[in-house]
Amino acid sequence: MTGINKAACIGGGVIGGGWIARFLLAGIDVDVFDPHPEASRIVGEVIANAEKAYAMLTGAPLPPRGRLTFCETLEEAVAGADWIQESVPERLDLKRGVLNEIDAVARPDALIGSSTSGLLPTDLQRDMKHPERLFVAHPYNPVYLLPLVEIVGGEKTSAATIKAAMERLPPIGMKGVHIAKEIEAFVGDRLLEALWREALWLIHDDICTVETLDDVIRYSFGLRWAQMGLFQTYRIAGGEAGMRHFLAQFGPCLAWPWTKLTDVVDLDDALIEKIGQQSDEQAADLSIRELERIRDENLVGILQALKGGDGGKGWGAGKLLKDFEQSLWAQGGGTTTSFDPSKPLRLVETKVSPAWVDYNGHMTEHRYLQVFGDTSDALLRLVGVDVAYVEAGHSYYTVETHIRHLGEAKLGQAIHSTCRILSVNDKRLHVFHTLHDTATGEAIATAEHMLLHVDSKAGKATPAPAVILDKVKAIAEAHANLVAPEGVGRYVGQKR
Amino acid sequence: MTGINKAACIGGGVIGGGWIARFLLAGIDVDVFDPHPEASRIVGEVIANAEKAYAMLTGAPLPPRGRLTFCETLEEAVAGADWIQESVPERLDLKRGVLNEIDAVARPDALIGSSTSGLLPTDLQRDMKHPERLFVAHPYNPVYLLPLVEIVGGEKTSAATIKAAMERLPPIGMKGVHIAKEIEAFVGDRLLEALWREALWLIHDDICTVETLDDVIRYSFGLRWAQMGLFQTYRIAGGEAGMRHFLAQFGPCLAWPWTKLTDVVDLDDALIEKIGQQSDEQAADLSIRELERIRDENLVGILQALKGGDGGKGWGAGKLLKDFEQSLWAQGGGTTTSFDPSKPLRLVETKVSPAWVDYNGHMTEHRYLQVFGDTSDALLRLVGVDVAYVEAGHSYYTVETHIRHLGEAKLGQAIHSTCRILSVNDKRLHVFHTLHDTATGEAIATAEHMLLHVDSKAGKATPAPAVILDKVKAIAEAHANLVAPEGVGRYVGQKR
Repeated sequence: MTGINKAACIGGGVIGGGWIARFLLAGIDVDVFDPHPEASRIVGEVIANAEKAYAMLTGAPLPPRGRLTFCETLEEAVAGADWIQESVPERLDLKRGVLNEIDAVARPDALIGSSTSGLLPTDLQRDMKHPERLFVAHPYNPVYLLPLVEIVGGEKTSAATIKAAMERLPPIGMKGVHIAKEIEAFVGDRLLEALWREALWLIHDDICTVETLDDVIRYSFGLRWAQMGLFQTYRIAGGEAGMRHFLAQFGPCLAWPWTKLTDVVDLDDALIEKIGQQSDEQAADLSIRELERIRDENLVGILQALKGGDGGKGWGAGKLLKDFEQSLWAQGGGTTTSFDPSKPLRLVETKVSPAWVDYNGHMTEHRYLQVFGDTSDALLRLVGVDVAYVEAGHSYYTVETHIRHLGEAKLGQAIHSTCRILSVNDKRLHVFHTLHDTATGEAIATAEHMLLHVDSKAGKATPAPAVILDKVKAIAEAHANLVAPEGVGRYVGQKR
Repeated sequence: MTGINKAACIGGGVIGGGWIARFLLAGIDVDVFDPHPEASRIVGEVIANAEKAYAMLTGAPLPPRGRLTFCETLEEAVAGADWIQESVPERLDLKRGVLNEIDAVARPDALIGSSTSGLLPTDLQRDMKHPERLFVAHPYNPVYLLPLVEIVGGEKTSAATIKAAMERLPPIGMKGVHIAKEIEAFVGDRLLEALWREALWLIHDDICTVETLDDVIRYSFGLRWAQMGLFQTYRIAGGEAGMRHFLAQFGPCLAWPWTKLTDVVDLDDALIEKIGQQSDEQAADLSIRELERIRDENLVGILQALKGGDGGKGWGAGKLLKDFEQSLWAQGGGTTTSFDPSKPLRLVETKVSPAWVDYNGHMTEHRYLQVFGDTSDALLRLVGVDVAYVEAGHSYYTVETHIRHLGEAKLGQAIHSTCRILSVNDKRLHVFHTLHDTATGEAIATAEHMLLHVDSKAGKATPAPAVILDKVKAIAEAHANLVAPEGVGRYVGQKR
């Protein structure tokens, strides 16, 4: 995939900060220009949220975080960048001015994206010397978790620019959707605006409260739309009769006087106060920070659930996450270049995710084995048993496991695992993992595993090739010098 | 909770069938009247989908399925029912006729819900003798998974009816949302209709295709709405400045000429054909059946993810699922009344869910331990270690585990677990579980566990009380007569 080498972000609010986090966590250096006195605090908070979310989102090895630099001038920030993202306030004159400044100093081959949620790219690029490289790249909040970027070109935008922009998003975990024709507000905000106007009427007329309205969404079509959207959902509703039949039935409803959409509600002080008050009641005692945390944890959980969709192949945003992780593994795995032979291998770093805990906030039993399984997978990638190797028909399967619980992992706790190779022969690999509290280093649990090298089609054990075995043996020999870990060879119920 | 004893469903299409499945799976007998010749086939298909979904959704013990009866007459179906759900086609004259028939023969204290998605309850109840018991109970497809029911009363509906209807939904896993004032299409379909009109314009004008539009939704705000809805999401977007500030900023946008909402698109043959064609392309080679399967698996995964939300307390539809499961456990657990002492206890029945498998469709390592952990939980509930016992401060914790893999569980496979108590004393409980392929009875994996009775606040072992121990010992004594299972006391790597 074609990656971004250096990004520049002009404007570092919540949206700009989200872009910055996306770039940094994908290992890309970012130069930022934002004269706002609070810019670095706001950006720092977004990055902190993003890091928390990523630690729960994926066990794949993120590359070393990119370097973040706040620059004194726009010119300094833009210098050398191959993706420049403008996220300044939503005023045409202001955005035009900033884009013209960028245009004057950017590399000729740089891509220039605008985060505008509604302005036309043709209007934005009007006065640029190289307008062909300007496009709208409209993301959704929180930018570090929601994958969508609406890509919209103006009259002077080149097809090569659109193509390049679309290609550069998957490596940072995002999904570019190309909107065929430019219109104000593009597609997402058009849809949101339509629903929003209707929602304001429903509150204005006391048909329901903001809490009731949110419940109507999140207990019904919100669940549908998180995975399939509007038309695919209706396709199913049409059943065997098909989409055309469904539509023909639906047609007459459009003439019914159901909605108030012909009038625009007056969002006056009274309505603002009413919604404000109802929103306070809905949130009860939850602060914005707490709501953000809950939202991000929920989004992580939904993305992970969709990663298992369509029989494990991944579906929608979950498929995207799966592909993103595969590319991270491809970059980060498979290298035995450096390990310290005097220590067990440190392999998995993560945080205890909310989906992993019980009512008391303790990590549930099987999540321990999940982290240990991830540890075995990380070891295997390290010795060359990567996606390509497995797809070619061979793998290691776990045949036996022994787990000891020595302490408890709690919600949000930073944990990591280490691995010792106890022994290896042509078919068998005997390992011992330890799960640690990262803050104290203390052992929370241990796992002893026996793995077998198998021909996965034939479903039986077969000797591992030398190219794998040599790497395993090198580690095993180094580990042979370490003191034997406590608990090896225990059976359940054995006296200490 | 106040439960439904017997339900009657008048009309058994996709919506009626969904209601029937909800009732049956919650253990409620259902009498159905639908003169349509295909009714029993359609209902049977919906129930089959629902059963597949529930097997993946929850490990909680569903009560014995209710009895399903197709009746020859409406009168027969309605007799004795305390919840009567009308789901006939969406025509006022037809619905009125059916409701008047129901009214004439129903028990005086029966609740009568209409599945109408748009008609006013005041219009529906106009000619009823007992109109106070009629209300709208508008569900969303698939009814067996989406929890929302919009509850709307008409002018003559009594407050007691609304209250009773709201109370009877959580025990069948649903969420009643009371809409304060009746309007055509209520709240959900108002919002859907608004967005739908805008979507039709976007397709009509070639701004995007149906696939692009669905992608815009499912990679962005669909993920937000599955868990928080519209206003709560914007509350966060407003940040520390608050909801009122956010609204005041948003106000001016309402006057912008963004949307085409003042006109209604003409859904003529050309537009129907265009959408039909684009929808075919989007679905590619996926049939409606496959799309249904994928949708249900995704919904199950999202609901399970939200069950872990807000630090394990559950959030939105996931909280509802958690509460539903607690009530199932409360009904189904805690009884040692009957078990066959000549066999291991059969405790967990489930299907391998899509979120549980890897790319090859094999159940991942840690999901084996999840089923074994659920087996221990089921045993504990059986001997009195239920939610109340745990909340009162004592529990059993697993301290040691040994797992052997003997075969492989695959996507969709029906599996169950059995449990043997090996030994017990006042603090320790030594068990041996086996995971079976339900079709053949063959063992796929075994797990040996040592559990300790603990004071969870103090975090240390403490003797279990006699009320628990007596029940455990009764089972242990019966199990002592069984042949010792193969594999007990093994350590990892031990020769066979």
